[in-house]
Amino acid sequence: MQTRHVRIMGTGQYLPERIVTDEEMDHRLGTPKGWVRKMTEVTARHFAGAHETSSYMGAKAADAALVDAGLRFQDIDCLVCTSGTKEQALPSTAVLIQRALGQEMSGVPAFDIDATCLSFLTGLDLMSYLVEAGRYRHVLLVSSEVASAGLNWKEKESAALFGDGAAAVVIGPSDGTSRIVGASMRTYSKGAALSEIRGGGTRIHPREHSEATEEDFLFHMNGQAIFRMASQLLPDFVGELLVQSDMRMTDFQAVIPHQGSAMALRLMQKKLGISGGQMVNITPDHGNTIAASIPMALHEAIRQGRITRGGQVLLLGTAAGLSLGGMTLVY
Amino acid sequence: MQTRHVRIMGTGQYLPERIVTDEEMDHRLGTPKGWVRKMTEVTARHFAGAHETSSYMGAKAADAALVDAGLRFQDIDCLVCTSGTKEQALPSTAVLIQRALGQEMSGVPAFDIDATCLSFLTGLDLMSYLVEAGRYRHVLLVSSEVASAGLNWKEKESAALFGDGAAAVVIGPSDGTSRIVGASMRTYSKGAALSEIRGGGTRIHPREHSEATEEDFLFHMNGQAIFRMASQLLPDFVGELLVQSDMRMTDFQAVIPHQGSAMALRLMQKKLGISGGQMVNITPDHGNTIAASIPMALHEAIRQGRITRGGQVLLLGTAAGLSLGGMTLVY
Repeated sequence: MQTRHVRIMGTGQYLPERIVTDEEMDHRLGTPKGWVRKMTEVTARHFAGAHETSSYMGAKAADAALVDAGLRFQDIDCLVCTSGTKEQALPSTAVLIQRALGQEMSGVPAFDIDATCLSFLTGLDLMSYLVEAGRYRHVLLVSSEVASAGLNWKEKESAALFGDGAAAVVIGPSDGTSRIVGASMRTYSKGAALSEIRGGGTRIHPREHSEATEEDFLFHMNGQAIFRMASQLLPDFVGELLVQSDMRMTDFQAVIPHQGSAMALRLMQKKLGISGGQMVNITPDHGNTIAASIPMALHEAIRQGRITRGGQVLLLGTAAGLSLGGMTLVY
Repeated sequence: MQTRHVRIMGTGQYLPERIVTDEEMDHRLGTPKGWVRKMTEVTARHFAGAHETSSYMGAKAADAALVDAGLRFQDIDCLVCTSGTKEQALPSTAVLIQRALGQEMSGVPAFDIDATCLSFLTGLDLMSYLVEAGRYRHVLLVSSEVASAGLNWKEKESAALFGDGAAAVVIGPSDGTSRIVGASMRTYSKGAALSEIRGGGTRIHPREHSEATEEDFLFHMNGQAIFRMASQLLPDFVGELLVQSDMRMTDFQAVIPHQGSAMALRLMQKKLGISGGQMVNITPDHGNTIAASIPMALHEAIRQGRITRGGQVLLLGTAAGLSLGGMTLVY
């Protein structure tokens, strides 16, 4: 019932041209030399330039994923943007990605799925049912994030964590072995205010932006409180997912976590018994790229040969919500 | 392959307390008495007050839908917000609805699906596959829109069209007759700029709001151009959906269109051969409530007895994108 005979056919990513080092971040934040590296372990992150919009980056990542999958856009039946931020309030970012791909009259359905940092995982989970049912043959999932647009430079610890980037994944029917085995998501809105941007929507409209309200329009995170909630909730959540999937932690070739922070990854590793060899950690070179972080890490792990066909993989993360999400698959 | 044995178990809606008449709109827009009624045929729309946030209204509509379905929140396995606007930039509106429902530690997965005015249709389409597969038994879909927050009062024709409101629908496994027969979506991003709010996302951040840029943060619509694109694309789109569903237009007990505008509804009726008795038009009392318009019209049609169990129904609409969406179902 949970198994979906779906295969990850190709992956791609796009990294903004500009790299911001930890030294540059220390300078920008006014922190002592070495503070950013010590606090976040992020030595480099990419920040998008003005031309590197979500749709521009998403289209570049999508093109790369199509090449990797050996497909053309004409083979794609549905385009889903799975990002935690939007390029503009309206329409959906997926529409803008379709346009950036030069496919303006393709008719390929385009819409967004938003579960903040778990958007990619949620989109992959949902859309795999449509591939399994034969509704769509090939689905293009794109996560593209310009986190740098909304950072609160006064909240130094969160500002130092994030980076920009895009990743795309093409899924299609399995050729046999590849499949999604299990997936689960839980949302505890008790944590809704622990990680948020209060403004920018219909409740606090951009017209209310002022010096007094500017923090309403910037990212706020209470890392400690999220850490505590996640510590309590993750072990049972993952335990249930493994039982449901009839797998043990040692079975996985790789564990692809949401790259929330170095601290979050260490928590996961310790609490869940993930080995250093299994854990895919791209935080040092990219920071937390919101929903793009899981597909970017997946792309890197495949490229580095840490995931091979037939290997078992665990995708896992937390998101603003607070949500927990996980998926077990055979690549 | 397309058929999903899914049943619409209950519907509910919430309308903001304040009703804005066409006379009041004429006054606000500075248009001659009767202009709003003549141009839009909208005699009344609801505008949300400060306490009537998306999540507040969404929770009220959700409670009503649960009562209608004879269920409690504890019976719900997944909560999806299917709105075209967001309450705040982050997290997902579904999370805030879960909190507004007082279900903060329920763990019920909560995320958003955004296809602008087709968000409900897209969410219903996607989530029905998960119900069919047994992943989730009962899914709560909530569309909640505060259109009034982003209206451009200088663009009188679009400002006069919109209203606020929320609607919710609970779906679950079919008891036999009820099913989704067919569904289709097409997106043509050639029309992406015809209906948009350029700002508010990561490309034009709220900090860039000023007197000079204020229109970037307000809704812009080129109604004539959308009308032309929709006129060309809709007939073939609907024709294919009917063939796929093995149904004729005369088979439908009711046609539930997105309430884009009175003009759009007349276009549909004429071009597609929909009878006056089939067409469910709630525009005069509500205006265009973005993604809430289809589930609100569905709710009204069921309440008025225009849709009865076993009756065939067509859901149909266009959205910013430009996207076309349709679904045939047996209620």
